[in-house]
Amino acid sequence: MRPALALTTGEPAGIGPEISAALAAAKHGARLVLLGDRSLLAERARAVGATADWPDFDPARDDDVAILHLPLAAPSLPGRLDPANAAYVLQLLDRAVDGCRDGTFAAIVTAPIHKGVINDAGVADGFFFGHTEYLAARTGTEQVVMLLTGGGLRVALATTHLPLAEVPAAITQASLSRTLRILHADLKTKFGLADPRILVAGLNPHAGENGHLGREEIEVIEPTLDALRAEGLTLIGPLPADTLFNRKQLEQGDAVLAMYHDQGLPVLKFASFGHGINVTLGLPLIRTSVDHGTALDLAGSGKADPGSLAAAVALAQELVQAAARPSH
Amino acid sequence: MRPALALTTGEPAGIGPEISAALAAAKHGARLVLLGDRSLLAERARAVGATADWPDFDPARDDDVAILHLPLAAPSLPGRLDPANAAYVLQLLDRAVDGCRDGTFAAIVTAPIHKGVINDAGVADGFFFGHTEYLAARTGTEQVVMLLTGGGLRVALATTHLPLAEVPAAITQASLSRTLRILHADLKTKFGLADPRILVAGLNPHAGENGHLGREEIEVIEPTLDALRAEGLTLIGPLPADTLFNRKQLEQGDAVLAMYHDQGLPVLKFASFGHGINVTLGLPLIRTSVDHGTALDLAGSGKADPGSLAAAVALAQELVQAAARPSH
Repeated sequence: MRPALALTTGEPAGIGPEISAALAAAKHGARLVLLGDRSLLAERARAVGATADWPDFDPARDDDVAILHLPLAAPSLPGRLDPANAAYVLQLLDRAVDGCRDGTFAAIVTAPIHKGVINDAGVADGFFFGHTEYLAARTGTEQVVMLLTGGGLRVALATTHLPLAEVPAAITQASLSRTLRILHADLKTKFGLADPRILVAGLNPHAGENGHLGREEIEVIEPTLDALRAEGLTLIGPLPADTLFNRKQLEQGDAVLAMYHDQGLPVLKFASFGHGINVTLGLPLIRTSVDHGTALDLAGSGKADPGSLAAAVALAQELVQAAARPSH
Repeated sequence: MRPALALTTGEPAGIGPEISAALAAAKHGARLVLLGDRSLLAERARAVGATADWPDFDPARDDDVAILHLPLAAPSLPGRLDPANAAYVLQLLDRAVDGCRDGTFAAIVTAPIHKGVINDAGVADGFFFGHTEYLAARTGTEQVVMLLTGGGLRVALATTHLPLAEVPAAITQASLSRTLRILHADLKTKFGLADPRILVAGLNPHAGENGHLGREEIEVIEPTLDALRAEGLTLIGPLPADTLFNRKQLEQGDAVLAMYHDQGLPVLKFASFGHGINVTLGLPLIRTSVDHGTALDLAGSGKADPGSLAAAVALAQELVQAAARPSH
């Protein structure tokens, strides 16, 4: 039997349910389990011209598409956020995580959610930063690494959703070392690369230019890379971020580690025409995601492009297969 | 008579002299004045198969190529930096600036120099950061703005060569306002855009996400943009840097203002395959430059690509023509 992929259909007022239905109705090659409200999915399937005649999920049956029904708290209208359904959105994630833990699911693919309404509803434990941080907390994972793929690039981040002023202090030898170990390990185990080569950006412009433009490369990054190289990791850098993203340099590595969000993601999104796929590394499960938002203005119109979601499902499939190979 | 463009041929041990000679020997359509040592240029011309039979510069004659001879202090070997010639490199710049001031030259195009050897020689007044800062000091310009073009993009920077930790404090309402005024004015007067539209990036990831990821957008950037909009400037933002560089968003603007070096330049260099052209805005003269270095390992081989230098000359020509139009 094929491994089952859990697709959490996301914010009910957004485009998540309809792009999930569109993808389910298309040729996708996966064993897909849609997590969401059955009547919501049926209604949004109509918007994309699909028939939602998918069976209820049965772990013992190898269906191309099945539904794992979890009920909405209140009816949902396209484009209208309702805090009453915020807990539902989190329940989809919780159910998917539980299913990965007990072996029912081989991976989670997440459709977009809306952070604002989850925070307005106050249903998360503390400020809700997003899927990545929530899944880390839910699985008791101390540190995760966000990696985006697209346009032929793989870009991981040493820090994610932090004010820029807090970035330099957040990059310590300990944190950077943890990030690089996770990235290295998951490139091996999830991406199936025997000896992954990681291009590491500097923190400062020109990677600090020998200390003239900042000393973090000398005091933090270089010693960290040296210590990990001694353990056998293949690490190239620290490199100036602007020359790192020259295509010739990119060919020398399998992934880039950028030190912060806006050093790495603008290139990735430019290169992928906005169709980046987000992979959370370091979790005890495989999770991929679209990198776009809920597009409330498009919801219900059937016009949203399911292409990124299809790519996220395809990548999840690849990662499941690579992880299953005994080579590493 | 065509306006004369001063081409400073740069570090003598680097690729500057030979790519200058290669360009001079090719079809370039400009009135080009090579600033450099005559015998050095003749020797490096041989490396690219060119004959350096160019006349001495005569302001009264409209030659396609002429040489303004300034002598080296010591013979220069390809790839061998010599602090004895550091003052020569600066003399080329000084002579070009003087020529722009007295109307002999309409613009300066700069071939690469080597900051390290200039600093080692101690010939600059204080630490030598690069062409941009030197030209600002030499022309008594309080603030300049670095803009790179390439790959269909124009990206200006609110801060340039600063350690990342110093970036947030360096962006004040006053400094940002000066930067935007310079960018707006030069897009009009140098690029010939009647009502330039500027896409402004936020400082923090997601442009601060309503203050959750930093307050500089709320406290510094937004009030600055509002004040300048009231004066008639067309400013879009602050926008999250990663969505700003989506191509659809880019079509809405004529130029991007990134808040710092590694927020803007990785995309620009990726988009331009490393062939960005650097334009210094705010100077009382037109200056364009290649964005690559001296490539000491290639010097003398004749293998360096003069393509970026050709593009820098072409852009200087365009800017001279746009600046001459009476429309603004």
